[in-house]
Amino acid sequence: MVRIAVDGMGGDFAPQAIVKGAEQAFNEKIADVVLVGDKTKLNAFLENPGGMEIVHTDEYVEMTESPSTALRRKRGSSVNKAFELVRTGNVQGVVTAGNSGAAMAFAIFTLGRIGLVERPAIATLQPNVAKGTITVLLDGGGNVDCKPVNLAQFAIMGSAFAKSAFGTATPRVGLLSNAEEETKGNDLTREAHAMIKDLGLNYLGYIEGNNVHNGHVDVVVCDGFVGNIALKITEGVAESLMTFLKENIEKSLKKKIGYLLMKEIFDELAKKTDYSEYGGAPLLGVDGVCIICHGRSNERAIKNAISMAAGYVKKNLNESIKEAMIDHFKG
Amino acid sequence: MVRIAVDGMGGDFAPQAIVKGAEQAFNEKIADVVLVGDKTKLNAFLENPGGMEIVHTDEYVEMTESPSTALRRKRGSSVNKAFELVRTGNVQGVVTAGNSGAAMAFAIFTLGRIGLVERPAIATLQPNVAKGTITVLLDGGGNVDCKPVNLAQFAIMGSAFAKSAFGTATPRVGLLSNAEEETKGNDLTREAHAMIKDLGLNYLGYIEGNNVHNGHVDVVVCDGFVGNIALKITEGVAESLMTFLKENIEKSLKKKIGYLLMKEIFDELAKKTDYSEYGGAPLLGVDGVCIICHGRSNERAIKNAISMAAGYVKKNLNESIKEAMIDHFKG
Repeated sequence: MVRIAVDGMGGDFAPQAIVKGAEQAFNEKIADVVLVGDKTKLNAFLENPGGMEIVHTDEYVEMTESPSTALRRKRGSSVNKAFELVRTGNVQGVVTAGNSGAAMAFAIFTLGRIGLVERPAIATLQPNVAKGTITVLLDGGGNVDCKPVNLAQFAIMGSAFAKSAFGTATPRVGLLSNAEEETKGNDLTREAHAMIKDLGLNYLGYIEGNNVHNGHVDVVVCDGFVGNIALKITEGVAESLMTFLKENIEKSLKKKIGYLLMKEIFDELAKKTDYSEYGGAPLLGVDGVCIICHGRSNERAIKNAISMAAGYVKKNLNESIKEAMIDHFKG
Repeated sequence: MVRIAVDGMGGDFAPQAIVKGAEQAFNEKIADVVLVGDKTKLNAFLENPGGMEIVHTDEYVEMTESPSTALRRKRGSSVNKAFELVRTGNVQGVVTAGNSGAAMAFAIFTLGRIGLVERPAIATLQPNVAKGTITVLLDGGGNVDCKPVNLAQFAIMGSAFAKSAFGTATPRVGLLSNAEEETKGNDLTREAHAMIKDLGLNYLGYIEGNNVHNGHVDVVVCDGFVGNIALKITEGVAESLMTFLKENIEKSLKKKIGYLLMKEIFDELAKKTDYSEYGGAPLLGVDGVCIICHGRSNERAIKNAISMAAGYVKKNLNESIKEAMIDHFKG
């Protein structure tokens, strides 16, 4: 069985939600889980650990700590220990809901990058609710100021990921921009566009923001600054519309009944847009499977992230990325 | 009465939708409208023009024409003629649903900029549906690659606009970024942040994408590349959710009845998120009122944009922006 290390100390609801999610995944035989963190604190929430292994660390990274400070001072932290377990071959993947900047820094430091990759990227899964498909958007926030070559590599990694994870034969790749014409875009996207065109991917060129959630492409490429804003706007719009509906439903019995008759639809929508359904976002380009979860992750999200990590290990995701970089990258 | 020139030839549904919207605004005495464009083509759609003036032009700018080409070759176009009517004091404002890049180029060329303003910006109105308020986001797409000083000026203009247009005493201004901590952001936003902090505005610092639509701020500042993506993602998410709901409602009678009982809520939501309700987006920083409408504008959008233009003329919007630039800008 695939062995996955889980950072027991990272996340807004750590360690409780993490311990519970890990325990479920272990007991349901989703993976052989190794929980990493302060043994006393973790034990306090364990109910039925079976033979689940715990690796003790005294330290952990705070959610608000700067990644560069953490990298210097917290080598003994739970998240870095989890990566060390991958490096030493003890486990094959890591799940963490902690400080994502620190997780990325330690992943690069301890696991190293896959050959040729300059910057690893966080691949976020965006549901296309109407079509029932998934679009991969990367970078989701790790790399704020990017060079064109970084975006070109994100295109290759995103395409390899969509192939490996979803079995999409020739993933359609789009570069997020302010218009479709190739004369538009900013300095960064114009240079990146010229590079990506020549990579031999199924590249559709520039796409606009309204094409992120309609299934027009399988992979959306952008820098981490734009990616983070895109993801947060998506969350904000969905939340704002749902708040509006909920508040108005409360205003009359007629509307409440209407809501109850439509409830299955809203429940399905909630399920489709629930991040805990996907578990987390894979960090692509580091030499080991790493799933970065939302800070707010609940036990279900952690369990699903462990399942995601185990799945990518089985599918040899990193081997696919390595090969795609060799095949497509003309740096 | 305020006199507004309307570009009769610009927009996906021009001239019909423009003529109808202009005629309605004129007949309802919203403004004294001057319709600009090919007289024969405009006359074909006029039903009850009353005494509405038409200024003839042979030329007009195509929707797909490059703004720089238009600026060189189409000085006699309907959109530029409309701006010339402002410059010569014949009208006080312009409404156009045509090529927005060309409109911006001609506005700067013919009207000129308000003293101190380096780059005019398109101010888009984002409804906060749950709260029933409006957030101004600028730049909405005019300026793709910005310098920090441009963002600082957008902050001043956006704040002056929110005061003048909505009567907000001390508008809360936020700079769109990937995190709230001031150490985050990209090279552009960090420099802009340092400038905006010292302008004497009610500046809340960095805001994230999920704060654009929840009423957390009155003004969101970003470059036009990010702004365009933010707006298109917003449209895309809302559209995708609505498509999902509609398709699922059709699946059973129970759900259809539920929808009918909730219909008032959906109708109100549609109204609140309908761009034609707002009319258009004011171009701030040029020396004259100019409303840039969505290319897809229908007659209602045009009528509302004319009303918007007349309102800003009455409120002396540009005088407020001029004063705010003098008061706050320490360039």
